[in-house]
Amino acid sequence: MIECDVIVSHQYIGGKALSGKTVVVIDTLRATTVMITALANQVHSIRCVLEPEEALKYKAENPKVILGGERYALKIDGFDYSNSPLEYSQELVAGKDLMMTTSNGTRTLLKSEAAETILIGCLRNAKAVIHHALSLKKDIILINAGTDGEFTLDDFITAGAMLHEIKDEVQMSDQALNALLIYEAHPDIHSALSDSRHYKRLKELGLTDDLDYCLQENTTDVIGIMTAGLIKKLY
Amino acid sequence: MIECDVIVSHQYIGGKALSGKTVVVIDTLRATTVMITALANQVHSIRCVLEPEEALKYKAENPKVILGGERYALKIDGFDYSNSPLEYSQELVAGKDLMMTTSNGTRTLLKSEAAETILIGCLRNAKAVIHHALSLKKDIILINAGTDGEFTLDDFITAGAMLHEIKDEVQMSDQALNALLIYEAHPDIHSALSDSRHYKRLKELGLTDDLDYCLQENTTDVIGIMTAGLIKKLY
Repeated sequence: MIECDVIVSHQYIGGKALSGKTVVVIDTLRATTVMITALANQVHSIRCVLEPEEALKYKAENPKVILGGERYALKIDGFDYSNSPLEYSQELVAGKDLMMTTSNGTRTLLKSEAAETILIGCLRNAKAVIHHALSLKKDIILINAGTDGEFTLDDFITAGAMLHEIKDEVQMSDQALNALLIYEAHPDIHSALSDSRHYKRLKELGLTDDLDYCLQENTTDVIGIMTAGLIKKLY
Repeated sequence: MIECDVIVSHQYIGGKALSGKTVVVIDTLRATTVMITALANQVHSIRCVLEPEEALKYKAENPKVILGGERYALKIDGFDYSNSPLEYSQELVAGKDLMMTTSNGTRTLLKSEAAETILIGCLRNAKAVIHHALSLKKDIILINAGTDGEFTLDDFITAGAMLHEIKDEVQMSDQALNALLIYEAHPDIHSALSDSRHYKRLKELGLTDDLDYCLQENTTDVIGIMTAGLIKKLY
């Protein structure tokens, strides 16, 4: 039977063997939601880098690339867009190459490269991405980006939403079971998250439209896949 | 405000600063339940060691010490008692010095020595131990022993039971909030744990009486405290 585990932040990837497995990277608030939105709006490709300087240097040599991401949840100086998925409209991104750097999500993707398959997951594509992951017939690891290297409830409950779809078809670790239980116990995700740190930080910044958007479940079938560092739409 | 965090296994203690904080070590199935039971039955002291060989060597030189613990959930050759709390009756342990080694619980205690105060917690003393921890007015870290170095739901839900008692008086990390939510969503702890790994392992070994005993909440006010490696009853 396919085994499912959850890693609760990129700082814990080190101890786990990803080789030969399917990984779904989750940064619900907001990096992977941005990616799925940009892919749905026909961005050509997305490449992750660790530091803003790398992105700015690349853009100096490749002026057509668009830069997106955040530090401290805010837009980076010299970048085109912030980490708000609402900015990534079809009009602005279709056909473009996007380079992103965020505090947690892009870092997590770069640390996941040992996996056989790396998929991009968020609440909006939870059902689609996990069923695709299951179809690959390898053990699945749901990797939460976390916040500042720590466990974050928004990513964890998203992992639970995915596990809810496939719970009868996989063998879950205790951490996976925990994510499932927490998801199933809280039909209203906003209320489950209302005391959580990252949710509160975004709310304080006035980003309630982003929160509403990121916390919608199963609104799209778009799946992103990262191959040799480049994220593209599957199919 | 006092901050509360949860560490989900002893393998993650390394990255956290324990200095100046109050730690509650939790190994519900079964090491800390054994300790609280032995203390309630007037054991004189409990010392933890990492390996069975250390305990056997110590006993060769100090024949009055009693040895307890497990490997693979079973009694260790040459030991007096297993890791079943039901064996630690007043008749057998009162006034004695106990030396223990278990796969996860004793290891976690030995790794927690940097904390200012180290308390012994389980479901049976959850309310008593957490209120005492709160009274010390330092940040609190609930350290789960985990199973084989991994997250385990039985310890995590115990942390949730403790946080439930003090939730309005502390500032919780997301991991603490998660533990609280999982506890509050599952009034029947047996059913919440029925798919979890360690619970199932003990059940397969026929240890249902142990499970029933370990999963009773708030049956005792006994608190254990570890000072310079020695665990004694507080008061």
